[in-house]
Amino acid sequence: MTDSQKTGTDKNSTDKTYDKLIAKVKEASLLASCSNVLGWEEHTYMPTNGSEHRANQLGLLAGLCHEKATDPELGNLLSELENSGELNEPDSPKAVNVREIRHEYDQGTKLSRKLVEEISRVCSLGQHAWIEARKKSDFSIFLPLLKQIVDLKIEVAEALCYGDGVPYDALLDAYEPGATTESINTIFTPLREELVKLVAAIKNSGIEPDSEIITRSYPIEMQKAFGIKAAKEIGFCFKSGRLDETTHPFCSGIGPGDCRITTRYDEHHFPGAFFGILHEAGHGIYEQGLNCEAYGSPMGETVSLGIHESQSRMWENLVGRSLSFWKHYFPQAQKTFPEALTGVELQQFYAAINDVRPSFIRVEADEVTYNLHIMLRFELEQKLISRDVKPEDIPEIWNQTFTEYFGLTPPDDTQGCLQDIHWSMGGIGYFPTYTLGNMYASQFFETANEELGDLNLMFEKGEFQPLKNWLNEKIHQPGKKYRANDFVKNVTGKPLSHEPLVRHLHKKFDELYQL
Amino acid sequence: MTDSQKTGTDKNSTDKTYDKLIAKVKEASLLASCSNVLGWEEHTYMPTNGSEHRANQLGLLAGLCHEKATDPELGNLLSELENSGELNEPDSPKAVNVREIRHEYDQGTKLSRKLVEEISRVCSLGQHAWIEARKKSDFSIFLPLLKQIVDLKIEVAEALCYGDGVPYDALLDAYEPGATTESINTIFTPLREELVKLVAAIKNSGIEPDSEIITRSYPIEMQKAFGIKAAKEIGFCFKSGRLDETTHPFCSGIGPGDCRITTRYDEHHFPGAFFGILHEAGHGIYEQGLNCEAYGSPMGETVSLGIHESQSRMWENLVGRSLSFWKHYFPQAQKTFPEALTGVELQQFYAAINDVRPSFIRVEADEVTYNLHIMLRFELEQKLISRDVKPEDIPEIWNQTFTEYFGLTPPDDTQGCLQDIHWSMGGIGYFPTYTLGNMYASQFFETANEELGDLNLMFEKGEFQPLKNWLNEKIHQPGKKYRANDFVKNVTGKPLSHEPLVRHLHKKFDELYQL
Repeated sequence: MTDSQKTGTDKNSTDKTYDKLIAKVKEASLLASCSNVLGWEEHTYMPTNGSEHRANQLGLLAGLCHEKATDPELGNLLSELENSGELNEPDSPKAVNVREIRHEYDQGTKLSRKLVEEISRVCSLGQHAWIEARKKSDFSIFLPLLKQIVDLKIEVAEALCYGDGVPYDALLDAYEPGATTESINTIFTPLREELVKLVAAIKNSGIEPDSEIITRSYPIEMQKAFGIKAAKEIGFCFKSGRLDETTHPFCSGIGPGDCRITTRYDEHHFPGAFFGILHEAGHGIYEQGLNCEAYGSPMGETVSLGIHESQSRMWENLVGRSLSFWKHYFPQAQKTFPEALTGVELQQFYAAINDVRPSFIRVEADEVTYNLHIMLRFELEQKLISRDVKPEDIPEIWNQTFTEYFGLTPPDDTQGCLQDIHWSMGGIGYFPTYTLGNMYASQFFETANEELGDLNLMFEKGEFQPLKNWLNEKIHQPGKKYRANDFVKNVTGKPLSHEPLVRHLHKKFDELYQL
Repeated sequence: MTDSQKTGTDKNSTDKTYDKLIAKVKEASLLASCSNVLGWEEHTYMPTNGSEHRANQLGLLAGLCHEKATDPELGNLLSELENSGELNEPDSPKAVNVREIRHEYDQGTKLSRKLVEEISRVCSLGQHAWIEARKKSDFSIFLPLLKQIVDLKIEVAEALCYGDGVPYDALLDAYEPGATTESINTIFTPLREELVKLVAAIKNSGIEPDSEIITRSYPIEMQKAFGIKAAKEIGFCFKSGRLDETTHPFCSGIGPGDCRITTRYDEHHFPGAFFGILHEAGHGIYEQGLNCEAYGSPMGETVSLGIHESQSRMWENLVGRSLSFWKHYFPQAQKTFPEALTGVELQQFYAAINDVRPSFIRVEADEVTYNLHIMLRFELEQKLISRDVKPEDIPEIWNQTFTEYFGLTPPDDTQGCLQDIHWSMGGIGYFPTYTLGNMYASQFFETANEELGDLNLMFEKGEFQPLKNWLNEKIHQPGKKYRANDFVKNVTGKPLSHEPLVRHLHKKFDELYQL
């Protein structure tokens, strides 16, 4: 056998190993995507009495997914590839896939199948308990499940960090790989200072938009039609997706050609559903923009939840709550909602949807105070995981902390600690990604503006395709090529900073509040 | 060790083996139920572009289910139990479960995982091709998939009967365990003779109901509400189920507390959706009536598709198309559909919904001609599997045979060979269970009447609970305790016969057509 033949054979064998690896992770992704359908369906159409069986189904699937993701054969294939000396280019799709599959595999093998199944089962039941508790504003309905969830997540956190480091960081890493409590504090601290100053300045401006405008009657059927039209126009494809109603809005990417978004409607609160739809459509556009050739492998997956959130917040806030967006859509809105909007000026409406004011509900908060809602949750969940706060004390501590942050006390738990679904679904460590997302969004948007020209001029004309295409190319198609930190640097040329977000907020609100 | 201790230990070890067996089949059932959710969702809410990914998901799940159902460990556990000498009482839950799990296991192990996955994938794509072909009445859209499906089903049939016996019988057995082409012909032949005579007598009676009544405007929203009310009142629980719209109505039992039924609406054809709902609700009441303690094992499963169909046809026809049912519901129907029914007499309406007349669409056929639709399909699908008919010749042969049977020629394939979903989902061998179901239904109904007193008097008063409870006890709770043949003997004291159905049809139609 000649040398070249030998090399040929080796290369061939590495290729085969790589193909086996990819086939295995694709199967794991495909199975996980079945859970996604069941999870989506649980919140949209499942009959009430089906919840226990659904919990069992999801538990089994979680266990099977875990089995696939931690199959020792995967470990063997990874080692073989890592030792082959053929992953020299760290940015090549192969190297990226091997790097990320290794990370997932190492994390996964630290957890037992039993624990993973139990979490899935308990969180499925937890969500139903939460829905009921929220409806009745009765924390005691949710408490027994929350206790179990916190215990299980502590078990996970400890297993993941092997007793070394901050357990909460291990949970953060699951949503924002590479992030730590420290790294987040480093960037949240200067942001908080700026936000507190801005909120005070706005309060002292004496200017108060007429927010009554957005609480008039907006018939739900018309909200639906208007929301769907806008979601389509910014680029969410309804042949590859759908919009439904749920207690807590979410986006679930099922796989190529299938991504679901949800919202909730309130006849007397226009922004809730509308910006909710734009937000989830933003997530959906990311999912729909992934490289479907790479489906099931890291190169076809989203970078992190923070980057995911940057996409939703960009379409919701930087586009959807901009004056230029409404220069285009306001005349249509007036036609669609004549009872509410006849005689209203664009500028009045724009001010009303950008009313900055401490309020109870995170998802309905303005762009400035929103991040304070996140910081509160970030603080509390660290304490839950370090056991400095007991689940039963959450309502009291929530209200206390909320009063400190916002100068308001929630009148009940539905408007306080029961408002969010996250903890009930085991999503402890998830919240900080929202504010990271806001920062990523502003930083990406500045770059897009530099590269594409004045985006606002395009929005005025209803042109969203250039931004969408830019996002597809720069953010969606690369998949997990880089971790979030490097990803931001790669796209914008700079590391993540709070400054673009602060610049955006000042530019917008200094004008609105004449600061 | 004393003898008594030894026996104690042995018993204990058999119990453990049995528990392991049940745990394993329950897990397989739970996984299969995940496919059911995905299958239901595919037909109700899935976005168009999701069909390829869904086919991949269902293929994977089918493969995993097959892996679980053919796990050699299952075979070992079964052998151990069969050799333990502790299954002496053949009707005991243990013996029944072992018997049925053995049957499933033996059948399953004859098929490769690859074949099972391929069937699932092709049939998922087949259904979408069928939907499009049916919409456009273009058989050529469906043909390539039908060819693949027929080839795959022949492969299955040959694998199951090891080249021994009639391949089509192996397919029948999957839906109606124990049934053969011969056993079905034995009972279909005398039935057909009676039906042909009855159809001729009705034709010659000169009486023609005014069927225009049921084609007036019945607003769809009202049809929905009216159908849901009736489904509830006969006993379908909407907390444990739901009703949606699909191209082809079906019932899908997901698991305890979760059963889905579907229908389709036509503003100008009242019976389509309404009797469709009663039909699917009948299936649903069976699923909801199963012993949920035994979920996942044969003792908690339905006997066969024929018995399943007996439940749907009983509520649809023996209850829903009876005069007594409409004595109760007609006044409500008049209030709900004033435009269509004001001035219409109960007797006129009753005659219109029981109009016996050769027609193209099976699911809309009357109780008499319905069974001829089945016999036609039974005949054709035997020929498809024996390769006496090629898939590409189906439209021609369908129309030819239809003309022989009904004296009418379908104007297009949508009203001919493209009307049913079954072949597109691989359900070859399924159709005969419909007519078996009609016969089982009449035979069960006669027994229920004997045991409960005059059911029609109860229906007149809107009392459906006694029949529903009787069905729950006699038909639903026993699960797979007996195979269909023995089951019928056990419930009615007699083997299955075509006579109760013929008696029912004569009693009803002799009066309606003054024969």
